[in-house]
Amino acid sequence: MDRIPILKLGEALLVTIQVDMHDRLAMALEEDLTTRIVEHAAKGVLIDISALEIVDSFIGRTLANIAMIAKVLDADTVVVGMRPAVAITLVELGLSLSGVRTALNAERGMAMIRNRIDADDLAVAADEDEGGS
Amino acid sequence: MDRIPILKLGEALLVTIQVDMHDRLAMALEEDLTTRIVEHAAKGVLIDISALEIVDSFIGRTLANIAMIAKVLDADTVVVGMRPAVAITLVELGLSLSGVRTALNAERGMAMIRNRIDADDLAVAADEDEGGS
Repeated sequence: MDRIPILKLGEALLVTIQVDMHDRLAMALEEDLTTRIVEHAAKGVLIDISALEIVDSFIGRTLANIAMIAKVLDADTVVVGMRPAVAITLVELGLSLSGVRTALNAERGMAMIRNRIDADDLAVAADEDEGGS
Repeated sequence: MDRIPILKLGEALLVTIQVDMHDRLAMALEEDLTTRIVEHAAKGVLIDISALEIVDSFIGRTLANIAMIAKVLDADTVVVGMRPAVAITLVELGLSLSGVRTALNAERGMAMIRNRIDADDLAVAADEDEGGS
């Protein structure tokens, strides 16, 4: 496989990482996500890593990179489904996944993204009200 | 990898197939999906195959099996993201994916599942009204 599929669900993009990421795959994922965020004006990126038994420093950095890129494009990144052993290893490796928000499962992650979208919509509505008065 | 992750989103379950399925993986997926459908009382199963460049008769049969099992448990199965070349091959192989509904992308597939859930909710509400009168 040369590309990890990205699913669009509403204003969120969903990625399930199932295979060990090598350099080229990680770069392709960063590129594809960037393109799709802009194309769909996505507000959130949900990354499921429940299939990963190991998260090494390379994957950790890739996730942090994606979160930073998404942030610049005004989208939140939520990593979900981390296994307990992976969380322990991350801390032992001294990786903090800075800038990456986490949630226990896809449903809670999606709720976090939806909250953010609702807050944005309210802000836009308030702006329009002010403009109209 | 020994298991394909299954994400729960509302009353739907979402599966992204990214790797070539062998016998054991297909059986594990059928088992896991069955367990999760019952556990969460899921009404729909969304299977994304956009990463698959080839759908052979084995994968076709696995998808049809999953759809049949889900049907027995009162859940709809929608296969999304099929590549044009895959659709051509399926027809050439004489595989009709009987019982499997398809949609162009995850968003439309999710809409199909949501329609079904809404229809169910309406039916339940109508039943309750009749019971109350």
